Amino acid sequence: MKKVRVAIIGASGYTGVEAIEILLRHPSAKATYLTALPEECGPVEEIFGQLRGRLDMKIEPLDLEKLADLADAALCCLPHKVSMGFVPKLLDAGLKVIDFSADYRLRDAALYEKYYVPHTDRKNLSHAVYGLPELYRKQIAPARLVANPGCYPTGASLALAPLLKEGLIKLSGIIVNAVTGVSGGGKNPSVIFHFPAMNENLLPYGVGTHRHMPEMEQTASDIAGKPAEILFQPHVGPFDRGILSSVYCDPTASVTSAQLLDLYHSFYRGEPFVQILSRPVALKHIAKSNYCHIYPAAVKGKIVVFSAIDNLVKGASGQAVQNLNLLFGLDETLGLK
Amino acid sequence: MKKVRVAIIGASGYTGVEAIEILLRHPSAKATYLTALPEECGPVEEIFGQLRGRLDMKIEPLDLEKLADLADAALCCLPHKVSMGFVPKLLDAGLKVIDFSADYRLRDAALYEKYYVPHTDRKNLSHAVYGLPELYRKQIAPARLVANPGCYPTGASLALAPLLKEGLIKLSGIIVNAVTGVSGGGKNPSVIFHFPAMNENLLPYGVGTHRHMPEMEQTASDIAGKPAEILFQPHVGPFDRGILSSVYCDPTASVTSAQLLDLYHSFYRGEPFVQILSRPVALKHIAKSNYCHIYPAAVKGKIVVFSAIDNLVKGASGQAVQNLNLLFGLDETLGLK
Amino acid sequence: MKKVRVAIIGASGYTGVEAIEILLRHPSAKATYLTALPEECGPVEEIFGQLRGRLDMKIEPLDLEKLADLADAALCCLPHKVSMGFVPKLLDAGLKVIDFSADYRLRDAALYEKYYVPHTDRKNLSHAVYGLPELYRKQIAPARLVANPGCYPTGASLALAPLLKEGLIKLSGIIVNAVTGVSGGGKNPSVIFHFPAMNENLLPYGVGTHRHMPEMEQTASDIAGKPAEILFQPHVGPFDRGILSSVYCDPTASVTSAQLLDLYHSFYRGEPFVQILSRPVALKHIAKSNYCHIYPAAVKGKIVVFSAIDNLVKGASGQAVQNLNLLFGLDETLGLK
Amino acid sequence: MKKVRVAIIGASGYTGVEAIEILLRHPSAKATYLTALPEECGPVEEIFGQLRGRLDMKIEPLDLEKLADLADAALCCLPHKVSMGFVPKLLDAGLKVIDFSADYRLRDAALYEKYYVPHTDRKNLSHAVYGLPELYRKQIAPARLVANPGCYPTGASLALAPLLKEGLIKLSGIIVNAVTGVSGGGKNPSVIFHFPAMNENLLPYGVGTHRHMPEMEQTASDIAGKPAEILFQPHVGPFDRGILSSVYCDPTASVTSAQLLDLYHSFYRGEPFVQILSRPVALKHIAKSNYCHIYPAAVKGKIVVFSAIDNLVKGASGQAVQNLNLLFGLDETLGLK
Repeated sequence: MKKVRVAIIGASGYTGVEAIEILLRHPSAKATYLTALPEECGPVEEIFGQLRGRLDMKIEPLDLEKLADLADAALCCLPHKVSMGFVPKLLDAGLKVIDFSADYRLRDAALYEKYYVPHTDRKNLSHAVYGLPELYRKQIAPARLVANPGCYPTGASLALAPLLKEGLIKLSGIIVNAVTGVSGGGKNPSVIFHFPAMNENLLPYGVGTHRHMPEMEQTASDIAGKPAEILFQPHVGPFDRGILSSVYCDPTASVTSAQLLDLYHSFYRGEPFVQILSRPVALKHIAKSNYCHIYPAAVKGKIVVFSAIDNLVKGASGQAVQNLNLLFGLDETLGLK
Repeated sequence: MKKVRVAIIGASGYTGVEAIEILLRHPSAKATYLTALPEECGPVEEIFGQLRGRLDMKIEPLDLEKLADLADAALCCLPHKVSMGFVPKLLDAGLKVIDFSADYRLRDAALYEKYYVPHTDRKNLSHAVYGLPELYRKQIAPARLVANPGCYPTGASLALAPLLKEGLIKLSGIIVNAVTGVSGGGKNPSVIFHFPAMNENLLPYGVGTHRHMPEMEQTASDIAGKPAEILFQPHVGPFDRGILSSVYCDPTASVTSAQLLDLYHSFYRGEPFVQILSRPVALKHIAKSNYCHIYPAAVKGKIVVFSAIDNLVKGASGQAVQNLNLLFGLDETLGLK
Repeated sequence: MKKVRVAIIGASGYTGVEAIEILLRHPSAKATYLTALPEECGPVEEIFGQLRGRLDMKIEPLDLEKLADLADAALCCLPHKVSMGFVPKLLDAGLKVIDFSADYRLRDAALYEKYYVPHTDRKNLSHAVYGLPELYRKQIAPARLVANPGCYPTGASLALAPLLKEGLIKLSGIIVNAVTGVSGGGKNPSVIFHFPAMNENLLPYGVGTHRHMPEMEQTASDIAGKPAEILFQPHVGPFDRGILSSVYCDPTASVTSAQLLDLYHSFYRGEPFVQILSRPVALKHIAKSNYCHIYPAAVKGKIVVFSAIDNLVKGASGQAVQNLNLLFGLDETLGLK
Repeated sequence: MKKVRVAIIGASGYTGVEAIEILLRHPSAKATYLTALPEECGPVEEIFGQLRGRLDMKIEPLDLEKLADLADAALCCLPHKVSMGFVPKLLDAGLKVIDFSADYRLRDAALYEKYYVPHTDRKNLSHAVYGLPELYRKQIAPARLVANPGCYPTGASLALAPLLKEGLIKLSGIIVNAVTGVSGGGKNPSVIFHFPAMNENLLPYGVGTHRHMPEMEQTASDIAGKPAEILFQPHVGPFDRGILSSVYCDPTASVTSAQLLDLYHSFYRGEPFVQILSRPVALKHIAKSNYCHIYPAAVKGKIVVFSAIDNLVKGASGQAVQNLNLLFGLDETLGLK
């Protein structure tokens, strides 16, 4: 069978190399074209020492004609704002596009503009599909443009979905307390993430202002069928990978931990990448994997749900390949197990 | 001036060595007698390599007569249950006692027995004072037995006190999401805290069952003047020291972040070890110090408060020396700045 | 094609789970039988949380009849001494065996007994083959029993081989200064590897006594064709995986860094898992991979060679699967790229 | 007694804050003037969160008149080249100066210029004293300008001194294999020391070219009384603080480990900050302390010596205060125990 040919736009960052590594293991897709800003181009193994001997390709400046020739799909790993400048061109070149930025996640352009910048591609925003397969699988398959979810929203939404679907919780006062590994902050060095600053540290940030909050609320509202409000509080901790979300919410009626376990098992039955645990999750168990581990419990009149994902895999490049598989009618788990 | 002579009972653990190091810097107190179980005895510098050349003492099995001769006060660093077997003897020997265990923290013996074991020293429980100086300073000074607070309750109570005192928050639905460093689990090796298991990991635990929950509620209720209910969720993260508490609560009336900052500054004015920040705390800033950093904010209809302490200092041995200073009429900050 | 059926004896440790994960990705071999001591048995996903949802097998106490029925080959991940009690039975059951212990690595039983314990299986020792494919490939293919090399000797031998083969260095005074990650110490908790003890630490150990020294010397002498003497000094550092070897030796004649690079490129031409770098290696680049990165340089009249491997992959389970592939006539890289 | 008034020039970096913290504990000296580049100025507690509430000072741009008024001594924490532009002014202002840079360490200006840049202050170079108190104590006391040693040379020189003094080792072929914590690389963020790059990593660097090599050789030659040659190989590991040096050398005559221990004990008798161990050192035991732990052993015809120091304390600011104490006739250990 002919393999799906994948271009990675913005291949020089952490999500780029993660996508490259996943595609190296993929039996039915392969990276055929890697692009980045001119100053970040070069042989892949020079830029990512861990790929030495494993992939003989170059990262090159984007050439749209070459792109159209070489690829069936694009993983667009650019930052927000930059992304919506490129996505129209990728679509025009005839590719299916999975965009990693926030630019096509919020259906309400006004909401996007409140948290980000003026939206310059409302045309494509109108048909973009939110790429969280466990919750939007049917919409994803026929799409041309998939907005790959944010890392935090992925963990939070999977933790909350069964409760929201069943109407088991109040739609206000939901708290998502999350801790991410430092790779979530990207590859560029900074004062905060300098090793001696971040090592042995733990930092809350974005208090009340993080841009993933409206994204979580959009998904929660979708599932609940009415507006849901979430207080999302991110932290960054001294480890490379993973997001642990500790979610607190108020039940609409009395519920036991056993009932919650039943509900979660039932809701996620057959899902290839969601595992329901009957004891607390451990972040290390999902490192380098596309799995989401979830543990729900009823505690002191509240419902507490813990979810763990790898921010670079299920929270980014793994999920993107899951979407890619859906877009091309492949087994959803290819390259990911 | 004659220095206060301090015995450390259970000196071979992490809180023991932390107390030893603090007393080495103390101008008006010194460690004069160090005891532990026979199998953990020996020259201090053999047991704690970091004390090599700094302290020429032995850790010895406890001898009560020697204790009475050598010490004015005891820091009792034993685990719960064991502690209440020793504390009566320490008091009988004429010493003032600061107990690190949970045995004298809960005034309600029945509540203690629900979370721990049968209480075997109700007599001394009746006069024990809870040793959180910022909130119970007046009671501590004249006490004979001080129950040194738990590490988690110290961080949580200091975060919540101003809100509770002013009646600004509802007394139910308070959430304390906390992450501790691994030293909080003590010195004994375990499967969970084996380096390759804990490194690059983050673990929720004690879901709905942690024993520090009733202790937090006791203090919160004291301050509020009526019963307060707290959902406390601990986690352990891949670093040595520190507890970051992220506290969520519901205001009784609308409040701004600026008003909260004013309140906290005013409540803790003059406190030598509490610092109010107008931006998020960083755990590393309080490592090896007796300080508590607090940042309160009004967010999406909730109040969020972050507090950071070193679990072994303000959460254990530093606070114990603070209490020691109070018990002996010394400047509360001696040895701690 | 029928897959090679692999039993893992001692599957409950770090090398066991690493072998399980590699076999999950192997197109022509699969784990069919997993055994361990009775107290370490149970569903794989209970014992290794990272395998949840990925492998529905149990680790069971060893049953030799079942073994003979279920497996073509055994990876024997037992400690030295224990291993040579089992290996004869595995061979008698008709399996090809790859042994992870030291029991069949030293051809000279007397030397083994000096560093370890009395040898109780000299019969099989006599035909065992040392399983370092880059240096003993031809002997491995037809073997029935392969002694999988130690982690340190793998890194050191690959670093030294070209120099020894060409007679470029003196055969005494060779220094191998190596630092391993903590997983090298195994899964059992200990005082030294307790997180708060090992974190932010770096420890030399086994000064002049480490058991991997004679193993390195055996290989070095094999290649040189006469006795070579190595001073091996191990250290353990605060990270999970990897061994960095910094090797110092005295050239027999003047040599440049460029000449060394040429030699190493030439010596390892075509090797699928050895990469020669023209700048210093980075341990993180070989994490979770079967690659060995090597950088040789001429410095101040000495030759310095750096090699980096993952102690659990190229230093254990990856190399075992490489040997397995050779034993069964498969492409040597299957499951490992 | 009037306290020695200390200016810290370049106070905004890691060695600056370490010096500030040490002076906060010093009974006879205090920081009176803190300077840095204009863009790094501001209240100390804004720049170093760990000093919040502990020091009410500002870091200001340098004003030479103010300096002359406010300080008796200067710790000059500037980088090489920059430093020799300022030191003459500090001396002219009448201060005793302890310089942290390399600018006054190498007595041979030509050697300096080979490794660094053209030397622009040979005048003061001629009377500068190398500030390693254990080896140059007598020269330090009367000096006006002390060149504070490099971190690596401190650990290596203390490890080698007894052997060199007694003529026990050959003066060529000495190998110093050292691993430093990341704080050794300074405070400025970089691609290499970005947390996700450095975490779980270990890197050799500066192969054959590190600038601390000639400094080590100068000291070794001083002690030996004739030219000594050292191959110094630095590495950086995933931890904040400390340098572990593993030193290998060739004895001139047969020697036992017991004899080496005797020699080291005798050589360093009475030294307040050097501890001789009869088992391997542990880096964590000297974290945040001015101690140097040393373990010498005779191994396979070589002598191996391990030394451990904190690169920011004994390797920088602690040693500087030790020198300060000597310059002002104070007890050498003040502020440091």
